Amino acid sequence: MKQKLCNSIDDVLRACEFKDGMTISFHHHLRNGDEVLNLVLERVSALGFKDLHIAASSIFPVHEPLIGHIKNGVVSRITAPYIAGPVAAAISSGKLDVEVRMQTHGGRAFAISRGSLKIDIAFVGAPASDCRGNCNGTQGKSAFGVMGYPLVDVRWAHKVVVITDNLVQFPAYPAEITQEQVDFVVIVKRIGNPNGIKSGSTRSATDPTGVKIAEDAVEVISASGLLVNGFSFQTGAGGASLATAQILFHQMQRRKIRGRFASGGITGFLVDMLQAELFETLLDVQCFDLKAVQSYALDARHQGMSAEKYASPGSRGSIVDDLDVVVLGAAEVDIDFNVNVTTGSDGVILGGSGGHADTADGAKLTIVTTRLNAGGYAKVVQNVNTITTPGSSIDVVVTDQGIAVNPNRKDLAGLLQGHNINLKDIQSLAEQSLAASSRNSIVNEDEERVVACVEDRYGQTIDVVRARTGAL
Amino acid sequence: MKQKLCNSIDDVLRACEFKDGMTISFHHHLRNGDEVLNLVLERVSALGFKDLHIAASSIFPVHEPLIGHIKNGVVSRITAPYIAGPVAAAISSGKLDVEVRMQTHGGRAFAISRGSLKIDIAFVGAPASDCRGNCNGTQGKSAFGVMGYPLVDVRWAHKVVVITDNLVQFPAYPAEITQEQVDFVVIVKRIGNPNGIKSGSTRSATDPTGVKIAEDAVEVISASGLLVNGFSFQTGAGGASLATAQILFHQMQRRKIRGRFASGGITGFLVDMLQAELFETLLDVQCFDLKAVQSYALDARHQGMSAEKYASPGSRGSIVDDLDVVVLGAAEVDIDFNVNVTTGSDGVILGGSGGHADTADGAKLTIVTTRLNAGGYAKVVQNVNTITTPGSSIDVVVTDQGIAVNPNRKDLAGLLQGHNINLKDIQSLAEQSLAASSRNSIVNEDEERVVACVEDRYGQTIDVVRARTGAL
Repeated sequence: MKQKLCNSIDDVLRACEFKDGMTISFHHHLRNGDEVLNLVLERVSALGFKDLHIAASSIFPVHEPLIGHIKNGVVSRITAPYIAGPVAAAISSGKLDVEVRMQTHGGRAFAISRGSLKIDIAFVGAPASDCRGNCNGTQGKSAFGVMGYPLVDVRWAHKVVVITDNLVQFPAYPAEITQEQVDFVVIVKRIGNPNGIKSGSTRSATDPTGVKIAEDAVEVISASGLLVNGFSFQTGAGGASLATAQILFHQMQRRKIRGRFASGGITGFLVDMLQAELFETLLDVQCFDLKAVQSYALDARHQGMSAEKYASPGSRGSIVDDLDVVVLGAAEVDIDFNVNVTTGSDGVILGGSGGHADTADGAKLTIVTTRLNAGGYAKVVQNVNTITTPGSSIDVVVTDQGIAVNPNRKDLAGLLQGHNINLKDIQSLAEQSLAASSRNSIVNEDEERVVACVEDRYGQTIDVVRARTGAL
Repeated sequence: MKQKLCNSIDDVLRACEFKDGMTISFHHHLRNGDEVLNLVLERVSALGFKDLHIAASSIFPVHEPLIGHIKNGVVSRITAPYIAGPVAAAISSGKLDVEVRMQTHGGRAFAISRGSLKIDIAFVGAPASDCRGNCNGTQGKSAFGVMGYPLVDVRWAHKVVVITDNLVQFPAYPAEITQEQVDFVVIVKRIGNPNGIKSGSTRSATDPTGVKIAEDAVEVISASGLLVNGFSFQTGAGGASLATAQILFHQMQRRKIRGRFASGGITGFLVDMLQAELFETLLDVQCFDLKAVQSYALDARHQGMSAEKYASPGSRGSIVDDLDVVVLGAAEVDIDFNVNVTTGSDGVILGGSGGHADTADGAKLTIVTTRLNAGGYAKVVQNVNTITTPGSSIDVVVTDQGIAVNPNRKDLAGLLQGHNINLKDIQSLAEQSLAASSRNSIVNEDEERVVACVEDRYGQTIDVVRARTGAL
């Protein structure tokens, strides 16, 4: 059998017949602790390659060196569902010569599966791999849990490279990605720091306003009639979303409601709910903290899933399309219920859809929670800076100053009557938000050049991000 | 989300836009207990469809109704790695108007993955499935264990139908085949009888001759120098092969040798070896008995694998190519070490390669065990009736009258010197075999029409089977 084990990234690049202009993919399971993307690009750059297309499942602050690679012409295109930190700020400045497309997690899987995003080489950071490329995310010092994102890349990429810091005996088990899909394996000192998995966005709100918003969100869920046996639930990684999960926990326990599944990026809160038998199973595309990593390794009820099973609109059925309720965050919401999680009130890129637009599209009830104001800015506005998720997918906006129901959900507005819910119309929330603001949101201006295209779940351009001259 | 659940096979056929001439696939995990193939073809026939191509991973005696479907023109082509029982006999008679190609298990996966075998609809019998098609082989009255064969079909088939007799709550776990790959789900009364899994071919030899052959095979393994820590092993399902596993068990235990893996169709013997920690892990493409089914459900060290991971020569690395030793059976062996497991001494089809040619091609040491004579026929002959596995893949033939080493393995012959091994040349074994025979083997005659093409592991035609007028 062909020898797959390479001595260095350089050897792997040679073995793959690396070329200028290639599309190379990365996953973000180590989130802000990932070191694989930087490691590969450092060698790609040192060897003088140019004009690469980076198809990453997300870009985090740790990936700051990308800026230099763009400036040097090593990288000329980035496609990713989420871009945060210095790279995002640099893109927003408009000073980089780089073409950026921002997908959703499901849209990325869809694009790969239908061939509109063709990956030449998929680089898969693996906490444990054998010499043939049988690998998993649960064993070793860099364990991050489920390998939901690379599962898609590996299936369709022209070449697949596993990068590991933990070579285990062949044949490795469990094998989440299996040898018949892997071309080369290379050992490095470290693929990353698993403490980076739990980044800032995965802490629960504990302040009174945050808790109040979470309580109101749960009240909406309860009033909707969906909180019954068989309930399915997902939440984002924002503080208010996590607080919602905590309150839901107690309410489900008190009312003896047993849900069918919780899905998405899985946190320790959801693991607690599984262990308390409040859900039959967890469907996990990405572990959000180390408690989830451990649970996935040990508990068969905690299932992994690929990004395709999770959210692709082009597959034969994705989990988000069976969701009852999703609770999501927002940087801004507008009076048409459009949500922006791509740019801040200052117009600078701060993230992106991830699974936001996917779950909003799929769930029966999509709740967005937000404070009315933050950092002096209005958060409920006339027009969001950037549309990440269209208002047609959003059912309810829960703020600290009241709750607005999308007029296209008259049925839901009816169900909420008679509950302890402070219903308002979205226009009045926007006015109140503006009145309480001390800074002007910077709305995208047409004259600035486009620095990023934003795609909806189906791969259609839903908006563009324009340069912010003030950024960086 | 689209409703996948259909009320009947008829509804499924309509939903799939079933047409004349389609290629439809089936798996044989229930072996001689399978009822899915018959069930589907009965409805296909009743609805008047014609000219179908059956791509089954194996055909067993239970599939006798296929003969009628061929006679009626419902089925005009069969492609399968193994065909036994009445269907095999009917094909051999030359009286059926059907085109037959016999692959290897690895060759089938290769053909599907490269598109030379295009499946229109894959029918997957599943012991447990939810309404979305998340399914597994381990739960329910028809549990058969690993789903190694359909995993390949499902990945490339145009449409995928799960047929189950056990609808479980969504989302099912474990999910071996997942919903994003499944188009339709239909519930039937029974997909088969799991008692049919353990068919005649999976019982161990206990007679003195059989045991002697097995002992000699283990002596060869031992003398080869491969029986050390890290050893990997596979055996067929023939009586002598299984007896070999038993004797190997005791030798490994006595010598405190810990093997890396045993692979293939997995029997209870191999489960015992895993539990005795004689192997680190089992790599299972198909459970051969109910003990293996249970082990796979409960023991993480007992891994499932797809037919592609198992044996495809076109994948990025298959398990058989990492095998140290395989012990295989034979209907006939000839003086060029070619092995026939496709037809009997009477020239009638009795099986086929399955994984025979795949493992022989991949393993470092391929041992074929056979009695010198059986049923009055010579088993070591000048020319086999049908070449299933080429002599270039066979290293040693172990018979009750002596052991022959392939002349292309002079290294091995050297290693066997000085051991308690009765070395003979293959020509003298053939002469002895002929002298002891009372019936003439019927060698394929050129004037008879071809009833089946036999493919090697790589999809090349290696031989043909001609009609036996005496058959049926």
